[in-house]
Amino acid sequence: MPIRNIAIGRPEEATHPDTLKAALAEFISTLIFVFAGSGSGIAYNKLTDNGAATPAGLIAASIAHAFGLFVAVSVGANISGGHVNPAVTFGAFVGGNITFLRGIVYIIAQLLGSVVASLLLAFVTSSTVPAFALSAGVGVGNALVLEIVMTFGLVYTVYATAVDPKRGSLGTIAPIAIGFIVGANILLGGAFSGAAMNPAVTFGPAVVSWTWANNWIYWVGPLIGGGLAGVIYEVVFISHTHEQLPTTDY
Amino acid sequence: MPIRNIAIGRPEEATHPDTLKAALAEFISTLIFVFAGSGSGIAYNKLTDNGAATPAGLIAASIAHAFGLFVAVSVGANISGGHVNPAVTFGAFVGGNITFLRGIVYIIAQLLGSVVASLLLAFVTSSTVPAFALSAGVGVGNALVLEIVMTFGLVYTVYATAVDPKRGSLGTIAPIAIGFIVGANILLGGAFSGAAMNPAVTFGPAVVSWTWANNWIYWVGPLIGGGLAGVIYEVVFISHTHEQLPTTDY
Amino acid sequence: MPIRNIAIGRPEEATHPDTLKAALAEFISTLIFVFAGSGSGIAYNKLTDNGAATPAGLIAASIAHAFGLFVAVSVGANISGGHVNPAVTFGAFVGGNITFLRGIVYIIAQLLGSVVASLLLAFVTSSTVPAFALSAGVGVGNALVLEIVMTFGLVYTVYATAVDPKRGSLGTIAPIAIGFIVGANILLGGAFSGAAMNPAVTFGPAVVSWTWANNWIYWVGPLIGGGLAGVIYEVVFISHTHEQLPTTDY
Amino acid sequence: MPIRNIAIGRPEEATHPDTLKAALAEFISTLIFVFAGSGSGIAYNKLTDNGAATPAGLIAASIAHAFGLFVAVSVGANISGGHVNPAVTFGAFVGGNITFLRGIVYIIAQLLGSVVASLLLAFVTSSTVPAFALSAGVGVGNALVLEIVMTFGLVYTVYATAVDPKRGSLGTIAPIAIGFIVGANILLGGAFSGAAMNPAVTFGPAVVSWTWANNWIYWVGPLIGGGLAGVIYEVVFISHTHEQLPTTDY
Repeated sequence: MPIRNIAIGRPEEATHPDTLKAALAEFISTLIFVFAGSGSGIAYNKLTDNGAATPAGLIAASIAHAFGLFVAVSVGANISGGHVNPAVTFGAFVGGNITFLRGIVYIIAQLLGSVVASLLLAFVTSSTVPAFALSAGVGVGNALVLEIVMTFGLVYTVYATAVDPKRGSLGTIAPIAIGFIVGANILLGGAFSGAAMNPAVTFGPAVVSWTWANNWIYWVGPLIGGGLAGVIYEVVFISHTHEQLPTTDY
Repeated sequence: MPIRNIAIGRPEEATHPDTLKAALAEFISTLIFVFAGSGSGIAYNKLTDNGAATPAGLIAASIAHAFGLFVAVSVGANISGGHVNPAVTFGAFVGGNITFLRGIVYIIAQLLGSVVASLLLAFVTSSTVPAFALSAGVGVGNALVLEIVMTFGLVYTVYATAVDPKRGSLGTIAPIAIGFIVGANILLGGAFSGAAMNPAVTFGPAVVSWTWANNWIYWVGPLIGGGLAGVIYEVVFISHTHEQLPTTDY
Repeated sequence: MPIRNIAIGRPEEATHPDTLKAALAEFISTLIFVFAGSGSGIAYNKLTDNGAATPAGLIAASIAHAFGLFVAVSVGANISGGHVNPAVTFGAFVGGNITFLRGIVYIIAQLLGSVVASLLLAFVTSSTVPAFALSAGVGVGNALVLEIVMTFGLVYTVYATAVDPKRGSLGTIAPIAIGFIVGANILLGGAFSGAAMNPAVTFGPAVVSWTWANNWIYWVGPLIGGGLAGVIYEVVFISHTHEQLPTTDY
Repeated sequence: MPIRNIAIGRPEEATHPDTLKAALAEFISTLIFVFAGSGSGIAYNKLTDNGAATPAGLIAASIAHAFGLFVAVSVGANISGGHVNPAVTFGAFVGGNITFLRGIVYIIAQLLGSVVASLLLAFVTSSTVPAFALSAGVGVGNALVLEIVMTFGLVYTVYATAVDPKRGSLGTIAPIAIGFIVGANILLGGAFSGAAMNPAVTFGPAVVSWTWANNWIYWVGPLIGGGLAGVIYEVVFISHTHEQLPTTDY
């Protein structure tokens, strides 16, 4: 069998203190990330009177998300692994690096973090929190493939810099790489699909603004892209070179 | 008792050579940070004839503060710990990582660094140094919560990357993470509360321009946010995993 | 003989599993890089209705390529070395750090990665993918020298931070340096030659838009600049200080 | 005596192979830095038809210099120490970390690198290379103090992150810190004195455009600021803690 065991996990794992600490870390990391990331969009809207997106607006979104995700991954790295993203958790699961139950706990924590960040944003800015949406003229199929490709790059980066046992000193800069690939992709995708690459970042704003149009794209695209990256990286670049390792969970 | 001792410190500690060197390091780090950070705002005002804030202005402020704080933390890291911020010092105090007396010396040095930076800015730019202020339409309560949440993220980052004994190689990039979370938050908060996250950066401009309207927000918000982060991180993520450690001061 | 052996490599090397894994890594890295980099140009065109280049446009291109290349190099570093660029592979070859056959395999993978990225971009954006081109008033000779000098800097950076056996802890930040020198150069060259510094990034857009005007500049310039950097760095800074080493391939 | 020996160096040192290699490294590093940094200003002038400075222009200059200097320091770090700046070399000299003769060789190499970069820029852009100049309304005294304070911060950063024997893992990110403090300061000083912090970066453009108005400011300011930083850091933060060390040159 080429990849490590996909494991369900024991039921008591979900309430184990370490799992709960990890969940709290995911909650706080996602809150920090969404607060700065979605907040930068609200600031843009305020400064431009809800003007159309401009290159300066994309740059602001890129930097806010790149810096914010870098930090969110950093602060969670040693507690939960710093997923901050259901697509990363799903990519870790299909690659055999997290159990099903622990993954579910992570994703719930991420979604809650995004909702609380969005509620806080609504209060501190006295504004609506804009939901992610497709730009005019962008088709559902186009946006879906865009989210798949961008999230593939993101989760591939997570695997290469933070999961691969051969990562060596690359692990030191892994959180920067993970944040900055999102920053790079926003300078493309921000003008088309909104460039979520992460169902959690779209979930909080969708709940608070109760706007669900096309929201499924931000689940299906990232989960496909992240899952593909997890399977491919694990099968091609990790498993064969470490066949001697016992199939343990991470 | 879940957290390490909150300690007063011995009186002679405040004049110990190591404390004075650390104070000088905090003074210089804060001077460097405020000089670039507040200076970037003066440059923006000059280039735009005191125009309204734009996304490009927020980006400039974000980069100046992100890069400047990263460096300020770096250059102080091995001497004083690189706090550069009374909210960080307070967060370290409530988490039991600095004594009361040493903390007071740090904060005085930080405030002095900000005042000297502001006086130098007033001279080199022949301009007024603008005090931090709430944007039009932003309520005191909104700004206060905004500063609390943003500073929570900042001090949580300090704890996770620079204080946590489990930080490992993450410590290498800690100053970058600490600088960049401020850069990310400015892209949100800069359009609302000014995004200080630090009483010292507002103190120098307030003294030099003698403008104190709402200045308390920049003390109360960051101290609450930083204190919360210090307590939560220390109690949840450090103390329980190191119960065997003697309660010593850092 | 001052530099290490320039080697052809054994024919079976090209189909060795390690070579194929490295080729896949180069393919994916180049795809990720070109997708974000060229994609950011398409987003700019969309947001400005194909408006003229502005400083904000250069900044967006700079950040997208700096962040994207940093990540592309990171994720390939431990598998293929993270060349992501025929000029880097050529510079490695003339310095004796990769065999001819393995280098050819790398370059084919890089070109394919760029073509697939460009095809994906054409689909997800429903746009043409603009080919690299000289700005109005820029002569062929000027652009050629510009690409030579910029690529010299890029490949010199690769050698100093990622190849030099004396690199030490500099190796940890090598991918960031490699990405950021491209970002810096784009703020100059983006307004003149397009600042490719890499034949692969121009190849995909050229194929998809079938636009080959002056495309040779993006091969000749980078290969000359990269080759010069490889020879000079290897001869001056590596070989003499390591004369005792056997001449082995990397 | 509180600081280490200020040494003249033996005459043959200037032509020692190691010194010449270091000089070549300084030459190439400065060329790479000035090419991207001053080049970004030429690109701005081209894109805006020599328009007035804007916040976007400052941001472009900030990123080009931050990224370019980070790389220039990185690629020279293990060969010459990566000074790339006569003010850094002077600061190293007054702190006793380089001999007089070796320092002179470094500075000549830096100046030549800047001149060659400027000549190349004039050719590839078919433009004049703009000399550094004070903005309208900025007095000589203001600009001088501004350059002193900014360069103090720069050379203090060099000492704290790259020279201090206690730097530890901070040394890994030293080149990033050194580049980014320049990027931060440009967002202030770029609108007033041009924010050189480095006589070499002003020397090449001054030679090529033969414009020497106020050029002395870019020598006197950085040398005072860099010298002060070298003396203060060495005396306060290095010497006393290492009194047991023999006074050797670095």
